[in-house]
Amino acid sequence: MDPWLSPRNSEGKDGATLTFEDNFEPSDRLPDSVAYLSALEKRLAQLKERQSKKDLVQSLEEKHKSCMLRLVSEGSNMTFTQEDFDLDVPVNSGHPAQAWLRRVAPERQAVTVGELVELLKADQLTQILSDEANNSDSASKGIGRELAIEFSRAFAVNSVVVLLARSESGLAETRNLVINANANVKVKIYPTDLSKSDPELFLSMIQTSLRESGCSAGDFDLSLIVHNAGSVGDVSEGTSDMCDPEKWQQYFSLNLFSVACLNSQFLKVFPEGSAKQRTIVNVTSLCAIKPFKSMGYYCTGKASREMFFRVLAEENPTIDVLNYAPGPVDTDMVSEVISSTGDADIKSMFVNLKKTGTILTVDQTTRKIMEVLESGKFESGQHVDYYDE
Amino acid sequence: MDPWLSPRNSEGKDGATLTFEDNFEPSDRLPDSVAYLSALEKRLAQLKERQSKKDLVQSLEEKHKSCMLRLVSEGSNMTFTQEDFDLDVPVNSGHPAQAWLRRVAPERQAVTVGELVELLKADQLTQILSDEANNSDSASKGIGRELAIEFSRAFAVNSVVVLLARSESGLAETRNLVINANANVKVKIYPTDLSKSDPELFLSMIQTSLRESGCSAGDFDLSLIVHNAGSVGDVSEGTSDMCDPEKWQQYFSLNLFSVACLNSQFLKVFPEGSAKQRTIVNVTSLCAIKPFKSMGYYCTGKASREMFFRVLAEENPTIDVLNYAPGPVDTDMVSEVISSTGDADIKSMFVNLKKTGTILTVDQTTRKIMEVLESGKFESGQHVDYYDE
Repeated sequence: MDPWLSPRNSEGKDGATLTFEDNFEPSDRLPDSVAYLSALEKRLAQLKERQSKKDLVQSLEEKHKSCMLRLVSEGSNMTFTQEDFDLDVPVNSGHPAQAWLRRVAPERQAVTVGELVELLKADQLTQILSDEANNSDSASKGIGRELAIEFSRAFAVNSVVVLLARSESGLAETRNLVINANANVKVKIYPTDLSKSDPELFLSMIQTSLRESGCSAGDFDLSLIVHNAGSVGDVSEGTSDMCDPEKWQQYFSLNLFSVACLNSQFLKVFPEGSAKQRTIVNVTSLCAIKPFKSMGYYCTGKASREMFFRVLAEENPTIDVLNYAPGPVDTDMVSEVISSTGDADIKSMFVNLKKTGTILTVDQTTRKIMEVLESGKFESGQHVDYYDE
Repeated sequence: MDPWLSPRNSEGKDGATLTFEDNFEPSDRLPDSVAYLSALEKRLAQLKERQSKKDLVQSLEEKHKSCMLRLVSEGSNMTFTQEDFDLDVPVNSGHPAQAWLRRVAPERQAVTVGELVELLKADQLTQILSDEANNSDSASKGIGRELAIEFSRAFAVNSVVVLLARSESGLAETRNLVINANANVKVKIYPTDLSKSDPELFLSMIQTSLRESGCSAGDFDLSLIVHNAGSVGDVSEGTSDMCDPEKWQQYFSLNLFSVACLNSQFLKVFPEGSAKQRTIVNVTSLCAIKPFKSMGYYCTGKASREMFFRVLAEENPTIDVLNYAPGPVDTDMVSEVISSTGDADIKSMFVNLKKTGTILTVDQTTRKIMEVLESGKFESGQHVDYYDE
């Protein structure tokens, strides 16, 4: 146990122990160890190369010096504020997303939250959460909202989060939840009907978000876009009846064309060499690789969209592309299938999933996708399912 | 050797032999054998159950009687016309498509061409060869044309063949080639721009073809549709640049929406219980299951289309659906990729296929698809590639 925590522990709510637990001999983790200092010096050297970050380096040096001075002069009697304790929490103790963050920016791997705040003060992550117009899993609800919150929780100070969905009130609520989870990110929301894909509008949303946040594409360690937009389509119609070109057009405009357009504009703003890492997540489905009765639009749309991102991965080795199938999650989309499907087997499959409680929650699938990204155990373009090992 | 052929052989062009080759003892194949007669009687019994075919049965009985009479009265000195020899050719000696035909209508399995003509006089096969507008593999060229010819060669008398493609002159030429291959089929051609899918137009094409041929959907043993329509799309554009909704819309209209619409109208005309067998062939590609650089539109379109037909197969167990990938065939589409692709690897891949002569011919792939259909060794909805065993 860290000696710094002893005074607090002796007054702990659980009243577990009031005796000494440590002999106050310096442990390996003491911040004045040779390894720790040389690591800090290395990071400082890295930061010094970046002209625009001089003031950050200076503030970091000062903070480091004052910390050392306090430690040396006050010894074990020094007083600590709640903030000191918060900053001293190891980064890897929290949500899996934090571990993932460490993977994507290893050269900034901080040991404590305090270090992270300082080291990454001027670094930001950006996230575009594109979301859907006609259905439930938008950035204003369901998986989209949960992903926005949990990703944001892992983001560094001054990250920019851009949320797209149809419902303005839903988006505003999501923004509040994101800020509650991490007050240090900037959230931009754009109520958008993605069934009418408009490339110029998409480009301006991303550019405006950066401009209003006072930053440019080169400022980011990670640029991430999550394509969660999607609708299930008319499940009352079998494939042998799907003969309305207008209906096809509308379905594909929302589920493929606008996704490709938004993705393209995102990559125009973040071209190769801009952010250190570019990650694209496509929320796909088992339906992209396996046919299901009554789900002709959904299967066809998901198959095309997954293939689009596989070609993108093939063409762009510097982009990390994940096709993530969230499994059967208890959202409005499932309710829609149950109430409208033209196939009894599909209906009873989903009804049983709900009845037996084997249907997944948005929490479960969100945790899984963050674990997948954290572990990095996927080939770019690969289809990874919730149920995959 | 069949004794009937001896007189002709002795005057054969090759002048091989003028000696007797047979002792005129009846062989197993002599048409008055007990097995042969009982087979004929069985077929007659089957035909007699069909009220509408009384005159056919009568003509067959008369033909059979007269044949027997001639055989009995004239013995080995009877005279034969060229037509007699043509009619006596075993059906299974020809193209694999004939064997396939026998598979799909086993109760009509004729031993000779003559029997086939008689037995199937009032039976017909219909084939809709839908084809593409913007590219080369249409019913007026390439794989589409070859499939039209070779399928038609296997079709029974009075089969109706409907060809759709953009080029009117190309279609007229294909019609001539089809009639050369089998003068007993009726060919309807419709110059059509499939990039503008029009469900009413599709329906009227099929209905008009039947009406003008004096038949209805119930008259057919087999209703078959081949979806060969397709374009390769803009191969100069990477997926990261594919942000034009209009371009997406056009690509999918030709490559998916119109295919689904035409298919739906075909199934409206030939619902479950109409023809004895309903077969749907989708000409797909390796690109439907494997991403290729610079071929974003093609891969995405083929993936969606193949999935559409997989769902169709899942929903309709009485339809045989084959997703056939013809392999790299030397058509204008390949030339287009070579001249326009934005990717050097893809270009050299196709250039090498041509240079080394490993690129396939339309003949090769047509033979393969007919073998696949004939063998019946595929699950409905399955992706079968030219190179598959």
